[in-house]
Amino acid sequence: MSPPIRLGMVGGGTGAFIGAVHRIAARLDGEFTLVAGALSSTPEKARESGEALGLARSYDDYVAMAKKEARRRDGIEAVAIVTPNHMHAGPAIEFLKRGIHVICDKPLTATMAEAKKLARVAEQAKALFILTHNYTGYPMVRQARAMVAAGELGRLRLVQVEYVQDWLTEPAERHGSKQAEWRTDPARSGAGGATGDIGTHAYNLACFVSGLTPEALAADLSVFVPGRALDDNAHVLLRFEGGAKGMLWASQVAPGNENGLRLRVYGEKGGLEWAQEDPNYLWFTPFGKPKQRLTRGGPGTVPDAARVTRTPPGHPEGYLEGFANLYAEAARAIRARQAGEAIPAEVTYPTIADGLAGMRFVEACVRSSGRNAAWVKL
Amino acid sequence: MSPPIRLGMVGGGTGAFIGAVHRIAARLDGEFTLVAGALSSTPEKARESGEALGLARSYDDYVAMAKKEARRRDGIEAVAIVTPNHMHAGPAIEFLKRGIHVICDKPLTATMAEAKKLARVAEQAKALFILTHNYTGYPMVRQARAMVAAGELGRLRLVQVEYVQDWLTEPAERHGSKQAEWRTDPARSGAGGATGDIGTHAYNLACFVSGLTPEALAADLSVFVPGRALDDNAHVLLRFEGGAKGMLWASQVAPGNENGLRLRVYGEKGGLEWAQEDPNYLWFTPFGKPKQRLTRGGPGTVPDAARVTRTPPGHPEGYLEGFANLYAEAARAIRARQAGEAIPAEVTYPTIADGLAGMRFVEACVRSSGRNAAWVKL
Amino acid sequence: MSPPIRLGMVGGGTGAFIGAVHRIAARLDGEFTLVAGALSSTPEKARESGEALGLARSYDDYVAMAKKEARRRDGIEAVAIVTPNHMHAGPAIEFLKRGIHVICDKPLTATMAEAKKLARVAEQAKALFILTHNYTGYPMVRQARAMVAAGELGRLRLVQVEYVQDWLTEPAERHGSKQAEWRTDPARSGAGGATGDIGTHAYNLACFVSGLTPEALAADLSVFVPGRALDDNAHVLLRFEGGAKGMLWASQVAPGNENGLRLRVYGEKGGLEWAQEDPNYLWFTPFGKPKQRLTRGGPGTVPDAARVTRTPPGHPEGYLEGFANLYAEAARAIRARQAGEAIPAEVTYPTIADGLAGMRFVEACVRSSGRNAAWVKL
Amino acid sequence: MSPPIRLGMVGGGTGAFIGAVHRIAARLDGEFTLVAGALSSTPEKARESGEALGLARSYDDYVAMAKKEARRRDGIEAVAIVTPNHMHAGPAIEFLKRGIHVICDKPLTATMAEAKKLARVAEQAKALFILTHNYTGYPMVRQARAMVAAGELGRLRLVQVEYVQDWLTEPAERHGSKQAEWRTDPARSGAGGATGDIGTHAYNLACFVSGLTPEALAADLSVFVPGRALDDNAHVLLRFEGGAKGMLWASQVAPGNENGLRLRVYGEKGGLEWAQEDPNYLWFTPFGKPKQRLTRGGPGTVPDAARVTRTPPGHPEGYLEGFANLYAEAARAIRARQAGEAIPAEVTYPTIADGLAGMRFVEACVRSSGRNAAWVKL
Repeated sequence: MSPPIRLGMVGGGTGAFIGAVHRIAARLDGEFTLVAGALSSTPEKARESGEALGLARSYDDYVAMAKKEARRRDGIEAVAIVTPNHMHAGPAIEFLKRGIHVICDKPLTATMAEAKKLARVAEQAKALFILTHNYTGYPMVRQARAMVAAGELGRLRLVQVEYVQDWLTEPAERHGSKQAEWRTDPARSGAGGATGDIGTHAYNLACFVSGLTPEALAADLSVFVPGRALDDNAHVLLRFEGGAKGMLWASQVAPGNENGLRLRVYGEKGGLEWAQEDPNYLWFTPFGKPKQRLTRGGPGTVPDAARVTRTPPGHPEGYLEGFANLYAEAARAIRARQAGEAIPAEVTYPTIADGLAGMRFVEACVRSSGRNAAWVKL
Repeated sequence: MSPPIRLGMVGGGTGAFIGAVHRIAARLDGEFTLVAGALSSTPEKARESGEALGLARSYDDYVAMAKKEARRRDGIEAVAIVTPNHMHAGPAIEFLKRGIHVICDKPLTATMAEAKKLARVAEQAKALFILTHNYTGYPMVRQARAMVAAGELGRLRLVQVEYVQDWLTEPAERHGSKQAEWRTDPARSGAGGATGDIGTHAYNLACFVSGLTPEALAADLSVFVPGRALDDNAHVLLRFEGGAKGMLWASQVAPGNENGLRLRVYGEKGGLEWAQEDPNYLWFTPFGKPKQRLTRGGPGTVPDAARVTRTPPGHPEGYLEGFANLYAEAARAIRARQAGEAIPAEVTYPTIADGLAGMRFVEACVRSSGRNAAWVKL
Repeated sequence: MSPPIRLGMVGGGTGAFIGAVHRIAARLDGEFTLVAGALSSTPEKARESGEALGLARSYDDYVAMAKKEARRRDGIEAVAIVTPNHMHAGPAIEFLKRGIHVICDKPLTATMAEAKKLARVAEQAKALFILTHNYTGYPMVRQARAMVAAGELGRLRLVQVEYVQDWLTEPAERHGSKQAEWRTDPARSGAGGATGDIGTHAYNLACFVSGLTPEALAADLSVFVPGRALDDNAHVLLRFEGGAKGMLWASQVAPGNENGLRLRVYGEKGGLEWAQEDPNYLWFTPFGKPKQRLTRGGPGTVPDAARVTRTPPGHPEGYLEGFANLYAEAARAIRARQAGEAIPAEVTYPTIADGLAGMRFVEACVRSSGRNAAWVKL
Repeated sequence: MSPPIRLGMVGGGTGAFIGAVHRIAARLDGEFTLVAGALSSTPEKARESGEALGLARSYDDYVAMAKKEARRRDGIEAVAIVTPNHMHAGPAIEFLKRGIHVICDKPLTATMAEAKKLARVAEQAKALFILTHNYTGYPMVRQARAMVAAGELGRLRLVQVEYVQDWLTEPAERHGSKQAEWRTDPARSGAGGATGDIGTHAYNLACFVSGLTPEALAADLSVFVPGRALDDNAHVLLRFEGGAKGMLWASQVAPGNENGLRLRVYGEKGGLEWAQEDPNYLWFTPFGKPKQRLTRGGPGTVPDAARVTRTPPGHPEGYLEGFANLYAEAARAIRARQAGEAIPAEVTYPTIADGLAGMRFVEACVRSSGRNAAWVKL
C-alpha cells in the first residue's frame, strides 16, 4: 500500500453535513490523509474547525491555501471542495491551475457562466477533476450499468427516476436550518432548488446507468412552501436519443420520504430497479422469466461491481461506502497520473462533463418551466 | 338476506378474462344470481358459453335480450356489460332505457361521441349506471380516501400515480392473444391504448383518493412496439385545481411489472402510499412522525374501510374481493332504488360522471400528445 | 357447468367468523348452494340465523337435520361443519353415516378419542371427508409442494415454520370475545390452545409442502396470560424421517403479528420461503444462483398451481380464494364420486389422515411439554 | 480531535476477511492508526502482509510484538486480535499483561479452559478488553435495547432470534475455502461450528437487546454435510429468568440466506423486529396500534441510537459503520482510561463477561445436544 495521498479541504467546518461525509469517505480505505484546510469562509471558524479536526495546516482562505500548499514539498496533492454551490468554481480553479487534483461536490457550480469557466480550466489542467455524484459509487449501480451495457435489457425504452425527500415540507430555512438556508437561496444555490440539489443526482444516475444521451426535457417546477425562492418540487419529462423516454421526479416536500432516490430502467428484453435506501439489492426482471433479486456480492455479480465491494453478501454496505468508492477511484486515477501512467480503463468517476450536463439540466428545467413546460433541448 | 338480484351479462363468453371476474364478483356475497346472457357477438359462441355457464336464458344478441328480459316477470334486474370498449354504449343504452340497471366495465366507451350519448341516457334513466373502476373497491383505498377527506394529510400538494404492466412488451397482438388484439385495435378500444386500458384506472384512482379536480394535463404518449396502432406507454403531467400537481405513468411495456398500480399522495402534513399488488397495506407518513404501515382491518381502520372488509387483519383480501365490493355497493343501491328509498350516503361506486371524466382524460392525452405534450384543459 | 351441489351447514350462526368464510368459499366458484343448516346449538339463534341467510331449511339440531336431509330427494349432498372443536365429531359421524359428504373445520376434534372414533367412521364411509386446512389451498403453496416433490431443492434438511398472532396478548376471553372464549376453554378446544388452533395449521402446512414424515418432537408450551387454561405460545423442535429437522413456533401473544403463518424449507440444492400474509409470492433460492421471487400465475408457474388460480399475475388472490380452492377440490371429488368415477389424481385436499396427524401433534406437544420438552414420538 | 490511538494487529494477513473489516472499522472515524502487526503465524506471510499494508513495524510472532511494543515510547496502545478462535487467548493475555488494550474478535476462545484463563487475566488487568460482537454496534440495535429498557414493550415474554447463512451448504472446507477450513475444524474453532461462529452472535444480540438473563437451554445440533466435524445447524430453545422464553436458530446450510441475523422481541405491550441485512429499519408494534417502521436517525430516534449515527436518515449505514461503532466506543473508553477518568456511562461495548457468556452458550449447546436436547443450565 502506497502512503496516503495528502488531501486538503475547502469548506466543511464544524456542523456541516457533507464535509464530514467527505472526510470519512477519504479515510475509509486509507488512501487519503487530510492535512490542510480552509474549512470556513469566516477565518475564526476556519481555525477552530481546523483545530477540532487536528489539521496540520489551517488557512483563512482558499487562495492562500492554494498558493502555499502548491509551494510546499509536502503540500496537498488533492483538495476536496465541499462548500455551497456558489463557492465551487473559485477554489476549484485556484487548485487546478496549480496542479492540485480537485474532488468537488455537486452540482458543479451555481451558475452556468461559472460552470463554463471552470470547465475550460479543468479541460486544460493537468490535474484531475472529480465530481462527487456519489450514488454512482454504489456497487449495485455499477452492476446495473454493466448489465445495461452488456445488453441484458435489450434496447432501452424507458428510464424512470425519482429522488424524493421531505425535509423541506415546512419552511425549515426560516427556522434555523443552515442546510435549508443556503439550499433555498438563489445566491448560493443557483437557479435550481430541488432541481439542483437532488434533481442533478437523479439525472446523473439515470444517464450513468442507462448510457443514454438525453435530447430534450419538459419541466414543471413548483414552489409549494410559500415564500420560498427556489423550486421544492420538479416534474420532468425526458426524451433520449434513439427514442427512449423517461420521467424524473425530484421533491423535497413529500412527507415520509427520507432520501428516496430510485431508478427503474426498461428495455425490450428486461428491466432493472434500484433504490438508494436499500442499496445492496438490484431487481432484475428478464421479460417472461422469474423476477430476480440480485444482492451485492451475491450470485451474478459482475466484475465492475465486485471491484468496488468491501464486504461479503449480506453484510450491508451503505452511503459512506458508496461515497468512499469515488474517493478510491480518485486515488487510483491520481496515482496513475502521478506515475505517468494511463488511468486504468475500469476506473470510473463523474467528471467535469457530468458537471456541465447537470448544469444544463438545471438550466433547461428552469427555462422549460418558465415556458409552461415546453420542450427544451439539452 | 333478500333473494339475490337477477343479473344478465353481455359479453364474457368462454375464454374472456373480465367476464369471469364479474361473475365471481357478482356471486361472492350472494347478492346476484346470473340468469341470462348474450355472451358473445357470434351467436353460436353465445349459446355454447351460455350452456357452459348453465344460464337459464341465452340470447344471440343484446337487443333481443333487453327486449325480452324487460317483458318477463322474472326478467333480469341488472346487467353486466363486459364487452370490448366499442360495445359498451349500445347495450348500456338498450338496458337503461328499459329500466334495467347497468354495471359496465371501463373505460366508458370507445369514443367521446358514444360516451356523451350514453351519458345523456344514463342521466335521464331511472335505472342506475355503475362503472367498474374496481380498484376503488379495495378497503385500503377507501381508507386512504377517508383519511384525505378528514384532513389527515393537510392540504394536498402532490399526487403521483402509476399503472405499469409488461404483457405488451412484445407484439402479443400478432401472436394470438385475443386480449391484446382488441386492446391494440383503435376500432374496438378507441383512441387510447395503455391510456384507455389502464391509464383511466390510474386517473380515476388518483381523483377518487385525492378528491381533487384535475385542471389540465400534458401527455407524451409513445408506441414502443413497432407496428402497434395505439400507445403502449403514457407519460403525463397533471395540474389540479387549487395548485396540487401530479404525474401519471401508464405502461404496458415495462418488463417485470405485472399489474403495478401504485398511488402516492402528499399534503402539507403527511403522505399516503398504496400499491395494488399488496393491497392490504397502506403506508401513512405523518410529517415528522414514524412511518406507519396500516393493515386492512387492523388498528386505525376507519368505518368507510371496515364496511367493505370481509376477513380479519392478516387474512389477505385481493382483487376479486375489491371487485366484489363494487357489486355489493351496486346491490345496496339497486335494493334501495327498488324499495323507493334514497341510496344510503355511504354507498360508493363510480358513475357515469367518472366514465365521462375518464374519456376526457383519454381525449386530452391524445390531443396533448399530438401537440407535443402541450397543456390541455380537462 | 353442472348445477351446484346442495350444501348444509352445522354451526356458523350470526357473528361467527369461520362460518361466513365457509359460505363465501362455497359460493365463490358457484359449485355449491347453501340450502339447509343447523346454525347454532341454541334453537332460537339457529332459526334466526337461518332466516338471516335465507336458508330454505333451518334445523334446531344437527341430528334432526342429518336424518331429514338424508331422506329428502333434494336433500343436501354435503355439509360444512364449522362449530367449535368439541362439536366436530358428533355431526361429522351423523352425516357420514348417511352418505352425506363432510367438509369439516380444523382441528379434527377436541380429543383424541373422538378423533379416532370419527376416523373409523370416515374410513368406512362412502361419503368423503375433507378437512379445511385451508392454507394448503393457496396456489403458491401448491407451487412450493410441487417444486419440492420435483426435487428442485434436493434432499430436504430443514423445515422452519411459524404461525404467529397477537390477538390473545391480553385476556380477550375475559372481555367479551366469543372467539377467544371457546378457544381458551379446554372443554371446547381440547388440550391445545395456540397449539391446536394455529399450531396444527403450521404443522399441516410444513408436512404438506415438504412431503416429509415427522418422527418426533420436543415442545415447550407456555401460558403467558395469567389465568388462561391453555397454551398461548408453543416452541417446538421437530425431527423428520430421513434426518431433516425443523422448528415450529405458534404464538397468539406476539404483538404486531396478525396472521403470520410463514414457511421456509431448505434442501441440499435450494430453498423456498412463503408467507401467508403476502400469499402471491414464493421466494425460490437455488443455491449459488440469484434469488427469485415467483409470482402467482407468473413465469415459472407449475400446473399444480395454475389449476387453482383464478386471476392473472399481479391481480392478487387472498385468503378467501385459497379457502375456496378447497371447496373447489371438494366439488371435483364429490362429482367424481357421484358419477362413480375415480377422483382425479390432481385433486388435492386434507383428509381424515391429516386430521389425525394434527391431533397426534397436539397430543405429543402437550405430552412433551409436560415432561419438560422431552422428545415424544409421532 | 486527539491524535489517533496507535493500534497493532494480530492475524489478519492478506486474504483474511475479518482483519480487513477491523482495519476499516478502526480507520473510519480517524480514532486509530495501525502501526504494528504480527499478521500471520507464518513469518514470511506476516512480513509480506505487513509490507502490503504499509505497517511501520511488522513482527513474526505476537509474543515478540507484545514485548517490544510495550517497551517503545511510541508503542501500540491497543491491539486487535483477529486470528482463528484458538489463537485468541494467547495473544490477548500477552498484551493485557503489558497494559495494552485488547480488541478481540469473537467467540472469546476455542475452549472454556482458555476462556476462563483469559477472563482471570482480563479482570485483573488495567487494560481494557473489548469483544467485537459487532452487531451490538448498529444504531437500531441500540435503539431497540433502549426501548426495551424504557419499558415500551412491557414485561418481555418472547425472544426469537436467528442467524442464517448458506455458505456451508456444500463442503466448502474441502474445496479450498480458508474461511471454511478453520471454522469447521474443532482444533481451531472449538466445540461449536455454526453455534460458535454465528450462534454466539445471535445469543449475544438477544441478550443485549432484551436485557434478559438466560437460565437454561435445550439444543439440537446437526451436521448436515457428511464428513463435517462440527455442527452446521443449531436449533435451540431458551428459557430466561423471570419466565420469558425464546428460540434460537443458527444455520450455515440454508440456501438463499446470506447473513440473516434477525431478532424479534415481544412483551406484554408491544414488539420489536430487526434484521441485520436491512439494518436501518426497526419495526415497532405497540399492541393495538398501527405498526411503525422506525428509521435510523428518523422520528423517534433515542439518544443511545443518535450518538452512534453518522449520516442522516435515508442515507443508509451498514455493517462497517456498525463495526466501527465498537471501535469508536473502544476509543472513548481507552481515552478515558488514559486520562484517568471514568469511562462515560453511555459508552457501550461487549466485554469479557459477554465472551464468557458466549462460551457457556456453546458449551451448553454441545452438552444439551449430546444428551438429546435435554435442558442445560446456563
